[in-house]
Amino acid sequence: MGESKKRVGVLGLGRMGAALAGALLGAGHDVVVWNRSPLKAGPLLDRGARLAATPAEAADADVVLSCLSTYDTQQPVLDATELSGRTLVNLTSGTPEQARGVAKWASSQGIDYVDGVIMAVPQGIGTPGARILYSGSETAFDTQRAVLEVLGEPVFLGEDAGLAALYDLALLGIMWSTMGGYLHALALVGSEGVAPDRFTPMALNWLTAVGGFLPGIGAQVASGDYETEVSALDINAAGLAMLVETSRAQGIGATVPAALKELFDRAVASGHGAHAIASVIEEIR
Amino acid sequence: MGESKKRVGVLGLGRMGAALAGALLGAGHDVVVWNRSPLKAGPLLDRGARLAATPAEAADADVVLSCLSTYDTQQPVLDATELSGRTLVNLTSGTPEQARGVAKWASSQGIDYVDGVIMAVPQGIGTPGARILYSGSETAFDTQRAVLEVLGEPVFLGEDAGLAALYDLALLGIMWSTMGGYLHALALVGSEGVAPDRFTPMALNWLTAVGGFLPGIGAQVASGDYETEVSALDINAAGLAMLVETSRAQGIGATVPAALKELFDRAVASGHGAHAIASVIEEIR
Repeated sequence: MGESKKRVGVLGLGRMGAALAGALLGAGHDVVVWNRSPLKAGPLLDRGARLAATPAEAADADVVLSCLSTYDTQQPVLDATELSGRTLVNLTSGTPEQARGVAKWASSQGIDYVDGVIMAVPQGIGTPGARILYSGSETAFDTQRAVLEVLGEPVFLGEDAGLAALYDLALLGIMWSTMGGYLHALALVGSEGVAPDRFTPMALNWLTAVGGFLPGIGAQVASGDYETEVSALDINAAGLAMLVETSRAQGIGATVPAALKELFDRAVASGHGAHAIASVIEEIR
Repeated sequence: MGESKKRVGVLGLGRMGAALAGALLGAGHDVVVWNRSPLKAGPLLDRGARLAATPAEAADADVVLSCLSTYDTQQPVLDATELSGRTLVNLTSGTPEQARGVAKWASSQGIDYVDGVIMAVPQGIGTPGARILYSGSETAFDTQRAVLEVLGEPVFLGEDAGLAALYDLALLGIMWSTMGGYLHALALVGSEGVAPDRFTPMALNWLTAVGGFLPGIGAQVASGDYETEVSALDINAAGLAMLVETSRAQGIGATVPAALKELFDRAVASGHGAHAIASVIEEIR
């Protein structure tokens, strides 16, 4: 084993934890895994991982990755380790406040702490396009960068340990919104018998165009200058009213379009009718 | 003027109508324009358009494009034309029911009727990437295809005149959802001082990944098989709860995330917790 190989502990072998351990094994690292139910470790042991009987055993490593289902299940596991002087990379999903809470606990224990969020599905771990966002100790991040690069492209956001979780929720929010819009669209065209495989290529083409609008919207949010020569908010609010009306006429639900309409209508009522869609942020923040 | 050049009437010179007339002039067509306020025609007249004093004058053409602000403003204009035996392409934005209503009126008048929706901003008309969706008379569409290609890539959807408006609302719904998600994300990271130009490249990268998930979701909707090895709905619903909670903790609104959460929660309550996100469509349609 070359000098670049490290001993890495992995706490939690759900789909994501197992994918992380697998990628580390693939890169030749010495991987020691712990899971509440050790049965899940089987396929990894076949590939050379070692099984830890306790979290403390897995924590006897250069760097420890924690990937448990929730913060509530994670803290008792962390309490059962001895991580003082080591680096903990917390990949359990949660809120910025939860990440900051663990950072504070880690600091009190003399643990170098990095919080990470994985912008990929388990099947994507270790493949190009997988990105993992980190925040917390930049020194610890830099020291462990070679290990983290095995999992996905690492992006360091800042020393506030809550930042990665904040970005995570912001990005997931875009995903849920887009998927919600897409599912609504499928239901709407489906109400006239249009199948998903007929509609989806058009939706993808359009989503690319929509992505092209976002930097301009971001620039307007940054400047606070909402002048537009392209598409005024009141026209879009009227369009949302048509979408809600048509959804109901076609006999489908309108929960999400109705919420968007409410938000856009509030911005129009606040005087942004002739402004760009970007002005809607004034009703959010 | 070659044989391929046609006389095209344009009713309505808002931003979009003016862009359409401009593209037709650029392609060498004989363009006659009408607008309630003739002052708006000035720049087009300089480029060779002719001004019609009445809608009927503009309707004396091979094909007439109508691009008025609403169906309510459009019908009196159409009533003032004599379009019998001619082709009307209706590009005014509205609902499928409104489009079908005009189609019925057109049929009673002996007018060949095509309904169209423009998936582009006025500045995009006539440029690659501009798409226009059509439905209604396929014969009329085919006959006028050369003229319509000047405006943007024409896509014919079917003989039901309401289809173009249905696709339009479905696609715009994706846009509003995605933009709403993006604006929420900007507000969320902005609450910790992260500027749009720092966040947006990451959002665009992620939106591309999200687009890659859509065909799989569409296939699950088509088959009704919601099994997943990737990401179960209950985990996503829990994530939405975190997004709503964190938005409130950061002092920003949560109208749209809360609506998405309500929708996802309903699907979980209906027994789809272990299923894929695609199963949410069961709560929409």
